[in-house]
Amino acid sequence: MKNYLDYINKAFESKARLGIMSVLMVQEKVEFSKLKETLHLTDGNLASHLRALEEATYLRVDKQFLDRKPNTTYALTQNGKHAFQLHLDALENLIVNHKPNP
Amino acid sequence: MKNYLDYINKAFESKARLGIMSVLMVQEKVEFSKLKETLHLTDGNLASHLRALEEATYLRVDKQFLDRKPNTTYALTQNGKHAFQLHLDALENLIVNHKPNP
Repeated sequence: MKNYLDYINKAFESKARLGIMSVLMVQEKVEFSKLKETLHLTDGNLASHLRALEEATYLRVDKQFLDRKPNTTYALTQNGKHAFQLHLDALENLIVNHKPNP
Repeated sequence: MKNYLDYINKAFESKARLGIMSVLMVQEKVEFSKLKETLHLTDGNLASHLRALEEATYLRVDKQFLDRKPNTTYALTQNGKHAFQLHLDALENLIVNHKPNP
């Protein structure tokens, strides 16, 4: 197979994962509630995608207390940024190969 | 959420589906064995993805006999071409938004 498909990363296949990575590429640190609202996901669904991305070392979780209330933020690791960029590059190659001729 | 994600099509999320659609965008009609070889998928796995895409009316199956041997080919429908193009456009938007500045 055309080898650009080799760089399609299973960890980023779903729309939810694309969305999460996408938001975190643009904003350094994002709260759970903000991700939930932006991506229209349920708590359970979002939590499970975040856990999978954390286990893959693509994102890190930061738990703090703000005004005595727990505050959890998510940020991409260097590894995560790099892996997502490779995935986007693979998708870009796929797209370039299928652009209709003008 | 940025609305380009709305056009990410679940039917095309996996690497196998991207691969199948991708091959069929370039070649009008492709045999099962050729798809299998190109995409390095098992018979069962490929058959199940093809069935799902057929059920979604994104591809059509053509069964014939060639020299008395059964010959099955796969081709995209107009609907399939259109839907895949929308998916690629959505991915392209995602990519454009994350291009590192030169």
